[in-house]
Amino acid sequence: MPDSASIDSSFAIERIRVDGALRDTVAAAQQHGDWHEEHLGDWRYRRLSDTFQRLPEGSVVFDDTLICGYPKIGRIFRLDAGLRAQFEHPCWVEEKIDGYNVRIFQHEGQVLALTRRGYICPFTTDRVPDLLDIRVFESEPELVLCAEVAGPENPYNEGGPPDIHEDIRLFVFDMMRKNQPGFLPHREKLRLLDAHALPGVPQYGRCEPDQAARLKPLVLALDRAGREGIIFKEDSGQDRRAKYVTGRINVADIRLCSAAIKQLPAEYFTQRVLRLALFLDEHGIAPTPDIERELGAALLEGMSDAIHQEHDTRKVIRRFRCRFLRKRNIRLFLRSLHHLLGKGSVRTRCLSREGAYYVLQFEKVLPRTTGLLAHLLRGGIVFD
Amino acid sequence: MPDSASIDSSFAIERIRVDGALRDTVAAAQQHGDWHEEHLGDWRYRRLSDTFQRLPEGSVVFDDTLICGYPKIGRIFRLDAGLRAQFEHPCWVEEKIDGYNVRIFQHEGQVLALTRRGYICPFTTDRVPDLLDIRVFESEPELVLCAEVAGPENPYNEGGPPDIHEDIRLFVFDMMRKNQPGFLPHREKLRLLDAHALPGVPQYGRCEPDQAARLKPLVLALDRAGREGIIFKEDSGQDRRAKYVTGRINVADIRLCSAAIKQLPAEYFTQRVLRLALFLDEHGIAPTPDIERELGAALLEGMSDAIHQEHDTRKVIRRFRCRFLRKRNIRLFLRSLHHLLGKGSVRTRCLSREGAYYVLQFEKVLPRTTGLLAHLLRGGIVFD
Repeated sequence: MPDSASIDSSFAIERIRVDGALRDTVAAAQQHGDWHEEHLGDWRYRRLSDTFQRLPEGSVVFDDTLICGYPKIGRIFRLDAGLRAQFEHPCWVEEKIDGYNVRIFQHEGQVLALTRRGYICPFTTDRVPDLLDIRVFESEPELVLCAEVAGPENPYNEGGPPDIHEDIRLFVFDMMRKNQPGFLPHREKLRLLDAHALPGVPQYGRCEPDQAARLKPLVLALDRAGREGIIFKEDSGQDRRAKYVTGRINVADIRLCSAAIKQLPAEYFTQRVLRLALFLDEHGIAPTPDIERELGAALLEGMSDAIHQEHDTRKVIRRFRCRFLRKRNIRLFLRSLHHLLGKGSVRTRCLSREGAYYVLQFEKVLPRTTGLLAHLLRGGIVFD
Repeated sequence: MPDSASIDSSFAIERIRVDGALRDTVAAAQQHGDWHEEHLGDWRYRRLSDTFQRLPEGSVVFDDTLICGYPKIGRIFRLDAGLRAQFEHPCWVEEKIDGYNVRIFQHEGQVLALTRRGYICPFTTDRVPDLLDIRVFESEPELVLCAEVAGPENPYNEGGPPDIHEDIRLFVFDMMRKNQPGFLPHREKLRLLDAHALPGVPQYGRCEPDQAARLKPLVLALDRAGREGIIFKEDSGQDRRAKYVTGRINVADIRLCSAAIKQLPAEYFTQRVLRLALFLDEHGIAPTPDIERELGAALLEGMSDAIHQEHDTRKVIRRFRCRFLRKRNIRLFLRSLHHLLGKGSVRTRCLSREGAYYVLQFEKVLPRTTGLLAHLLRGGIVFD
């Protein structure tokens, strides 16, 4: 996203305000981690592009401040067996929102948003004041909010929660502190959400590991509503976690991404079909003709659309639209997207004014899908 | 299949009866090729496990005799553009049969069948006298028949041509000569097929590269009949080739293999969906609800079956049944299959006598699918 370069010289661990075991980890990561120097506009920071010991990918350093990356959460495919196998203590159950993951914090008087991989996102950064009351950082300057941004007008994912019909919304699901490992305890997070009237993800209470059966109605209701799933967070010092998704979200993901065949690994599709089959099996739902047809259509519609696009315009593209408050952030956003996706892969279609917003419409070109289809449709040969 | 070992000592190129450019290639392959020494029963030979220059994977050496491997044939996804792009001269059009590829030849008085990868197949070798008149090798001792073996009772592929309801059949599609590169010319092949009353693949005449349109009715008829597709063979000294498959065969392949998710690369599935989308587009067939449902069902049925199998028996298996003439070949066949698939991966269910045949029923265990599902169904976690 910003211009990046591998770091030759080590940076000054001494200045980073970390202590204890985390200090040792950062010191080791300083020597052996995969750090990149990023700059975009006036922002300059270091980004860890691969998980190093307990420092997740996407950890960043701004001057004297470390913001830990958001760690991967494992997936279970069975409620009952999964809760028993993965947890020893009761778990908090939260909704998993279908959006993109950001970390939001204040640095030198500016509120910034980082993507999962640790890039500053000029779009989210632009819109943060719309999405939450940023005065929280006046009383909590060390706070890092971990949140999902979701809705149809975002620049990364097509689709999203079916009950968000326009623009985007933000849902906080975790909190961290700068220069500290791990998350704030669940009750502390709820207290801060409440005290600062921050938007949180829906909470579904606590569940004992041997009482997963009582979650089935919730999961089936989320499935019917086209929502993504739930996250389990153990109510213990270990803070173990797992995610569990609905069946239908897999069909939705496949529908949105089947035009991007070749951009995504093939496993993206087969894993989702397997997850759907496992969900149907777990909940005793026989694959009905409707589900089968939806799955087949999800695969074929996107691919047919890609074929037609290549045929008509010689390019396979996906369209995005999003709203900005400040024009300067649009320039930074487009620059960062070009950097991330490569030259010629982003095309601005239209920039207009709607009320308080600048509305940017743009296209991402899918180069591998375009290239493959161009080859095949012109009679190219493939040895497979 | 047979026991195999990498070859330490080089073998005697001097003895192999090859000349000219092929001799140079074999000499180079002797030094740098990936040869394996195979033995099964009384058979001993050398097998090339990777294509080396113009010697395809599966080339083998028996004493003084080289049998060239069967080369890969590229695939086109468009009839009209494909024929224009790939060919300069008219092409012979032959049916592509949905089975497995063998090379059949006589060695020291025995007629043997090799698989594509160059292993002796004790099953096909056993049944050759049923499948063709082997007296052809009396007058043509240097002949190598390249053929597809297809039908429901084969030990490798489930499914097959819908008009073969039991056992197997054989279809010759090419001929080679021992110690010679390339194939016999098409007319020479037809003459030998006719002279020796050998079973050949269906022939659909010749087609000019700019007259592909006239093949559309044939392709659509094959599609409706559930048959696999066609092969183009240029009527020229260059003998260029290409294959083109129907839409429906992709759905059939997916249906048969979706239980083997994790045994096969994910691309196996996504490529077939893309081929189906391209076929529908080329022939102006909108994806109908029936086609969508068939595709979805093909994916879900096999996976659901695998989940139920793991749940019920803790193993995901596929069942096979095939007929042998000689009991000794069953032992050799099972030994070779164990060797190829690994210990514990083949289980004999039943051996019975039916008329002139021994009927072997056996199961192949799918270890990766079994392992994955066992992990997931017992509540295991996956970081994906």
